[in-house]
Formats: sequence, structure tokens, C-alpha cells
Amino acid sequence: MSVTAAQGFRAAGVAAGIKENGNPDLALVVNDGPRLAAAGVFTSNRVKAAPVLWSEQVLKSGRISAVVLNSGGANACTGPKGFQDTHATAEKVAESLNTAGFDETGGHAAGMVAVCSTGLIGVLLPMDKLLPGVDQAVAQLSPHGGEKAAIAIKTTDTVHKTSVAQGEGWTVGGMAKGAGMLAPGLATMLVVLTTDADVDAETLDKALRAATRVTFDRVDSDGCMSTNDTVLLLASGASGITPEYAEFAEAVRTVCDDLGQQLVRDAEGASKDIRIEVVNAATEDDAVEVGRSIARNNLLKCAIHGEDPNWGRVLSAIGTTQAAFEPDRLNVAINGVWVCRNGGVGEDRDTVDMRYREVHIVADLAAGSETATVWTNDLTADYVHENSAYSS
Amino acid sequence: MSVTAAQGFRAAGVAAGIKENGNPDLALVVNDGPRLAAAGVFTSNRVKAAPVLWSEQVLKSGRISAVVLNSGGANACTGPKGFQDTHATAEKVAESLNTAGFDETGGHAAGMVAVCSTGLIGVLLPMDKLLPGVDQAVAQLSPHGGEKAAIAIKTTDTVHKTSVAQGEGWTVGGMAKGAGMLAPGLATMLVVLTTDADVDAETLDKALRAATRVTFDRVDSDGCMSTNDTVLLLASGASGITPEYAEFAEAVRTVCDDLGQQLVRDAEGASKDIRIEVVNAATEDDAVEVGRSIARNNLLKCAIHGEDPNWGRVLSAIGTTQAAFEPDRLNVAINGVWVCRNGGVGEDRDTVDMRYREVHIVADLAAGSETATVWTNDLTADYVHENSAYSS
Repeated sequence: MSVTAAQGFRAAGVAAGIKENGNPDLALVVNDGPRLAAAGVFTSNRVKAAPVLWSEQVLKSGRISAVVLNSGGANACTGPKGFQDTHATAEKVAESLNTAGFDETGGHAAGMVAVCSTGLIGVLLPMDKLLPGVDQAVAQLSPHGGEKAAIAIKTTDTVHKTSVAQGEGWTVGGMAKGAGMLAPGLATMLVVLTTDADVDAETLDKALRAATRVTFDRVDSDGCMSTNDTVLLLASGASGITPEYAEFAEAVRTVCDDLGQQLVRDAEGASKDIRIEVVNAATEDDAVEVGRSIARNNLLKCAIHGEDPNWGRVLSAIGTTQAAFEPDRLNVAINGVWVCRNGGVGEDRDTVDMRYREVHIVADLAAGSETATVWTNDLTADYVHENSAYSS
Repeated sequence: MSVTAAQGFRAAGVAAGIKENGNPDLALVVNDGPRLAAAGVFTSNRVKAAPVLWSEQVLKSGRISAVVLNSGGANACTGPKGFQDTHATAEKVAESLNTAGFDETGGHAAGMVAVCSTGLIGVLLPMDKLLPGVDQAVAQLSPHGGEKAAIAIKTTDTVHKTSVAQGEGWTVGGMAKGAGMLAPGLATMLVVLTTDADVDAETLDKALRAATRVTFDRVDSDGCMSTNDTVLLLASGASGITPEYAEFAEAVRTVCDDLGQQLVRDAEGASKDIRIEVVNAATEDDAVEVGRSIARNNLLKCAIHGEDPNWGRVLSAIGTTQAAFEPDRLNVAINGVWVCRNGGVGEDRDTVDMRYREVHIVADLAAGSETATVWTNDLTADYVHENSAYSS
């Protein structure tokens, strides 16, 4: 399953010793071809980690032969030395793969190795542990290694996240990590998707951007955008099948949506998953802007934690946006009860049942016919606790 | 002190029974003239409470003879009935003042009575309690009533807030409430300032806008903008002195700054006050944008709570802005230690002393010479607790 559900991929996950607690911390995904097409989407944060800057360069060719991922350190804000470390890691992966004889594709080169890192910002990676870990991972590469790879990229994740969608004779699979610093553009996370469909880089790019725009980009756990977000999609072509674009794009979207949901459900300290559906917006952009504003309102997130259907905080969040709406035409439903009608008091708020983990907020802008759904979580004392102690 | 520090003002604070716990909940400030000039600044939230819509209209004349303020209910998102209630409150104040003979200024009229409300959104005010409370407040009006008025406008505030600045023969005084939902444009709060300087409405407006722009507008406790923010400045002219503009504006700024600081120090659940000083920005707008982005980063706010000088979260917040900067030229100091230099690791983070309540973050954009300071608080389990239970 995971990144090895599709044919033509091998993966591994090992404990290189980057994490002090001895947990798995290094993952490797290798594309054995015959095709090596790839696409990627990266954080829109202007402060980008060294591995993001590196992988953006790698992707310019539209070809990736391997992805190496480490947890235990983000390698962000680490200056020229951090970038050298990323480069050295890619060189090591290529060298180790070539030494081991994984050369079906004509030999690996550093310029085709993407690098992803996650963990604390501002700390150099322990290269004396990371580089031997690469050899260890290469030695353990397996067409059944997807699960282990997914486990090795966890940071504060409580569970590893994988997903698979099947086409007719082809497959899209993937893994993700991310549990905090989740915000649009993208959620803080690393995602590697693989497919054995025979698809070129341009098509991969189109399908991936269409999918992330409506999935990962609409997960906003805590409004904090990471320096390291990376989503990669690799195609091996090993199935020999080139699916219809729409069918392929839908499979990619399905896997992204599933992984995005898993990220929401594992968000740091969260006790509620909040689905914010903005309806009757003038434009989709308006709907997304309003959804994000609601998703980032700390007071509302606290209220939901307290199982309090505090719709006034929804209206006050909507009011901070530039979206088209009239305040006295706004309607808000929480778990099916229209607690706000025409900008004022609606049905009895005491009838709202908030006992379950999923909370569904509908914000009706009464200004058009466009819709968007944004996911977030409640704000809890556990979130505060987890993020007060993370680097100390 | 407070709103009665300046000559020509009387005030009162009473328990009208709007709050179920019996605490004071209705304040009245009356300008006895001879001048009745006034200026005001209101929330930029597009969802505005009825009293904000009312007071904006009142201010168009540049004259306010009285301000009535209630805690225990925001009268926001309450539809036409909410607006009628605000109107009825203003009518009642004028009628009650005229009956009591406070007619030095030629009789009070509803159109010169500003109304402010604070408390839960989406609930109609108990007018059967509020209106008799107005009579009670009028009966207790006193030139020494400023303190009681300041106490009556508290919601989750743990202390009441007042401030006074003295000119030569004239005074600016004021009161404020606000403890959560503090965000720019303005912090969620009600503020009434008074002066006995003989100043016209236009000058008051200029001085008030100049002051709020660099004080209340740069307090961002939790990123949540209220529906009810109101800052009013009333002049009685009772001193007979017209100060130089610069001197007067500085007194207004001083009082606003002092009250803003008191709001920060009393923010819900906070254990740290965080002063974010953005320096060497290309423009003041850039400096403010960066300051706000840092102030709203939940992960950083948690880290500060945990006394963790996590500068990576400062950089990641800066990276989400549109301000002019180069990532590898950014510098960050926390409590005087330059923990980040040139976008990478700087001085030893273990030398940062975080034991005290005030935390000082300097973000050096190395892109110009402009500066701005934004204040925020840490994010704590107490904040979550207080805001999970507020309306239930």
C-alpha cells in the first residue's frame, strides 16, 4: 500500500538516529520506471527550507528517480550549510543506489533526487547519522516498503497516513505526514504520491495542482504556514496504461482528499474536526476567503471545543473579509440547525447537538451560487501544551 | 479620574441587572459643556453591532452630549429589533437627563447620545432592566463617577482601566474595557476619552485617528476583530484653553497608549505580553503587516507561553507576508539575544531569558528604515478554557 501500491516503486523507512528517541526518521522512495515523470507543489511561504529550494530545482526537468525524506529536523533557516547538507543527501542517495545496482533507469544522479525534511526549524541536520541512514534505507528498499516509509516521516503525528485509489489496471497511492502548522498554501506536511499509470510530467502537474487546490489547500488546522510543505507525484508508467485525464485526475484528487482528511483527524491536540461549507458565494474565491477566515478564528475554535454553537463568532469572522455579502442576509447553520437567519437570531441554539467529533458549519452568504469547503480543528489546551513544549 | 478627570463631565456606573451575576453593567458619561465636540473611531468589521451603526450616525454632527454603555450583551446580530433597542436606549437617556434637569446645554436629544454595548453576540438586551438602569445612572451622575463607570463596562476584564494625561490647565482622561477578541481595526473594546480642552470636532477627529492608528490598532491579542469596537473622544471646553495641536495630540496618544497597554496586560488567559518591534522595513505598512503576522502565529504564541525562544516560527510568520525582504537577510532578537542572523542560526538560544512577563521580539527586515511595534499575548490553556465556556 502507500507509495508502493503502484507498480514500479520501492520504498523503505529506517531509524537513522536523527531523532533522539530512536524512532524511524528516514524514508526513501525509488521510482524504478520505465517512466520517471514527476510533478510537485511546494509551500508558498517565502521563507523556504533548503530541501524545498533543492526539490524545486530538481523538478524543473519533470523527472524524479527517488525521494528521500527525513523527520527529526526541517533543515529550514539553516543558511548555506543547510543547502549543502540537502545537496550532500541527494548525492548520497544517488551514489548509494548506483552502488547497490538499482540502475534499471540508466543510473541515478543527485539532480533527480528530491529531498524533503520536517521537524524543528533552525537546526542543522546531524549528517553523520543521516548519510549512513541512506545506505541503510537503500539496503532495505522493497516493493512492500510503503508502510515503513510512511511511519518514518511522522513527527507529532499520532498515526501514519496512507491512501490508495485504483483505476482499471493502474493505481495511485500515497503517504502523508502533518499534524500541526497546517495552513493553506499548503498544509504543513510532506506528501508523496506514486502512480504506475503511464502519464507525462505535464499531465501529472495539471492533475496534481487541480487536486491540491481543493484538498490540501483547504485544510487549515492552525493558520500557520510551514517552510517545508511539499507534495510530490511520481509516475513509473509500469502499468503500461495511459488513463483518460479526467479519470486519472479524479484518482489523484481522491487520494489527496483522503490524506487531507487524515491530516485533519490527526491535528495536534484537536478534539473536533470542523467542516466549514460556504454556500451561495458570489465567487469561489469569496467562498474560500470566508471559509479560511472562519477557520482561523481562535474564539470560534475555542467555542467549538466547548461544544458551544457560538454563531456570533462565525459572523464576526465573515465580517473581516472582503467577500460580497450583506450582513443582514447572512445565514449560519451548525450541525443542521439554522442558528442565524438574516444576520440575526435564528432557530434555538440549544437544539444543536455538538457531541460528535465532526462539526458541520454552513455559512450562507446569499450572494451567488458558488461554494467551497474548508476544514479546520478546534483549539484546545492540548494544542497549547503540545506547541509550548515542542522544541524544549 | 477616568472620564471625569477633565472638567465638564459627570459619570455613573450602576448594576441594572443586565448581567445575571448582579455586577455593575451600565455606565453613563455626560458632557456638561460648554462645548459638545466629539470624534469617534469604530470597528472595521463589516458585521457591525446596532450601537455601532447608531453611534456612527450620531457622530456625523460632530456633537455628543452623552454616552451610555452597557456590558452583559453586545446587541450585535440582533436585527431590526436590536437597532430599535439601541434607539430606545438613546431616547431614554435624553429623556431622563432632561427630566433630571441636566439641561445646561439646552436640552438633551437622542440624536446626540452615543450608545456602546459589549458582551455576547446574537442576544437581545433585556430592555426591561436596561431602561430603568438609565434612570438609576442619571440619578447617580457625579463629577467623581469616572471610576464607577469604568467598572461597569467590564466583561471578562479582571481590572478596570483608566488613564489621565495633564496639559497646562487642561486634561485628557479615559476609560477602556477589553480582554479578548482584541485585534486591529480595532481591538475589541470600548473606550471613552474626555477632555476639557476647548477643541473643535475636526481637531478631535484628527488627533484621535492619529493616536488610535499607532496604539489600539497595533494591539492584536488574538487576531479576532469585534463587531462592537468603539473609541470616542468628547471635549467639554470647560477649561477654556485651546492647546497647541501637537501638544493635544500627544496627550491623546499618551492616554490611548496607556489604555492599550492595560488591555494587553489584561488579555484573557495571557501569561506573557509580547512586544513585537519590526525594524528596518521598507515602509511602515510593511512593518505593520509583518508585526501582525507574527502576532497572529498561534505556534509562536504557544512557544512563548512555554518560554521557548522558537525563532523559526517568527521567520515562518514573516514568510507569509508580502513585505519587502530577502529570507537570507532576516535577523531576529528575542529578549536582546540575536537568535537568528541572516536567516539562519545566530546566538545561542539557550542564553535567552524568558522568565519575565514581557517578551520583546525584534524582527529586522534589513530592507529599509521604517519601524512599527505591535503588541500581542501568548496563547494559553486558560485562553482556551475561558473562551470555550464564555456563552454556555
